[in-house]
Amino acid sequence: MNEELIKMLLAFREERNWGQFHNPKDLAISLSLEASELLENFQWRSSEDAVLHKKQEIADELADVLIYAVYLADALDLKIEDVIRDKMRRNAAKYPVDKAFGKMTKYTEL
Amino acid sequence: MNEELIKMLLAFREERNWGQFHNPKDLAISLSLEASELLENFQWRSSEDAVLHKKQEIADELADVLIYAVYLADALDLKIEDVIRDKMRRNAAKYPVDKAFGKMTKYTEL
Amino acid sequence: MNEELIKMLLAFREERNWGQFHNPKDLAISLSLEASELLENFQWRSSEDAVLHKKQEIADELADVLIYAVYLADALDLKIEDVIRDKMRRNAAKYPVDKAFGKMTKYTEL
Amino acid sequence: MNEELIKMLLAFREERNWGQFHNPKDLAISLSLEASELLENFQWRSSEDAVLHKKQEIADELADVLIYAVYLADALDLKIEDVIRDKMRRNAAKYPVDKAFGKMTKYTEL
Repeated sequence: MNEELIKMLLAFREERNWGQFHNPKDLAISLSLEASELLENFQWRSSEDAVLHKKQEIADELADVLIYAVYLADALDLKIEDVIRDKMRRNAAKYPVDKAFGKMTKYTEL
Repeated sequence: MNEELIKMLLAFREERNWGQFHNPKDLAISLSLEASELLENFQWRSSEDAVLHKKQEIADELADVLIYAVYLADALDLKIEDVIRDKMRRNAAKYPVDKAFGKMTKYTEL
Repeated sequence: MNEELIKMLLAFREERNWGQFHNPKDLAISLSLEASELLENFQWRSSEDAVLHKKQEIADELADVLIYAVYLADALDLKIEDVIRDKMRRNAAKYPVDKAFGKMTKYTEL
Repeated sequence: MNEELIKMLLAFREERNWGQFHNPKDLAISLSLEASELLENFQWRSSEDAVLHKKQEIADELADVLIYAVYLADALDLKIEDVIRDKMRRNAAKYPVDKAFGKMTKYTEL
């Protein structure tokens, strides 16, 4: 996420004085709740049906997940791109192409 | 997230031929599972204690959440920054500064 | 759940002096985490495949969900059978047979 | 849960012809979603505050979790009391009183 967008999200929060509520534990709860609200759009539906009829709702919940991820990263003084690059470095070692090619089972251990 | 990082995540998946498993419904399930694994680091602990003793684990799970968010956005042909900007535009209208200032209750409806 | 089984679960906790950790908020987090661990058995699989290859794991996680439900009900001084009967009474009014018959859409609002 | 209550829950479903939607994977998703809705009542609040102001909402969501647990057990042809007793037998071996007494850390591995 580019710096300007992250700054905008943090400014939105500061303008409303909401930072006071953003302890990491409650942010982790909120991140989990928003991911569940995203999943709710697929409840009792096929993947195709959900994408066809609920794409805007899914996009909105995906936005909420990402917004809380930004706030949690800020609360922990983490840079989003650094945590992703760090994890991907270890994933690359854990799932070498020759061994992991087309293997769902190892993937599920991600 | 910058384009180069997103390209790297998609290339990682393609090299392993994992895209075949990435239907949106299962990606939504995985996003929710990773958000729960992040939250697990706060189980039975205060927020402060978790940050003190589990910061690396939290960072790793945050990375997984973000990685699945990138894969889900790709599967739905959504641009992450667009969904965030679109949601924030509506949040700004829904939570005007004068009304939402310091109000957790409205915030929880985010 | 019969009284004898609930007594056994509470005795198990007391023998280990674990009740001190069981504040309702952390129990609600644990209930959510165990429900996610149950769901994890269906990740990247069809429902049929999960039941065929993961039935014992699913049964174990279902047990954990139910065990935390018992501990949470105890912490809130609620009787499990009462909360179910109370909710079903309202569900029966909310989903009259003639209107709700075979209707998934209303059901998803459960 | 006593047999009569379980029979009532299954009859409620059959009267509405909802069993057709209850494949185990979607039931596992629903169980996870209801556990998140229960947790939502604790979002941005202390445990005490949630119990004070949200007890009825928590009881309702706990009922939904238990109702889906009954439907999932039925779909997998599992008896709820059997899965709990089976898990508790292994928990008793895994967490002997002398070693587990007052130890949250082992407990979190439950």
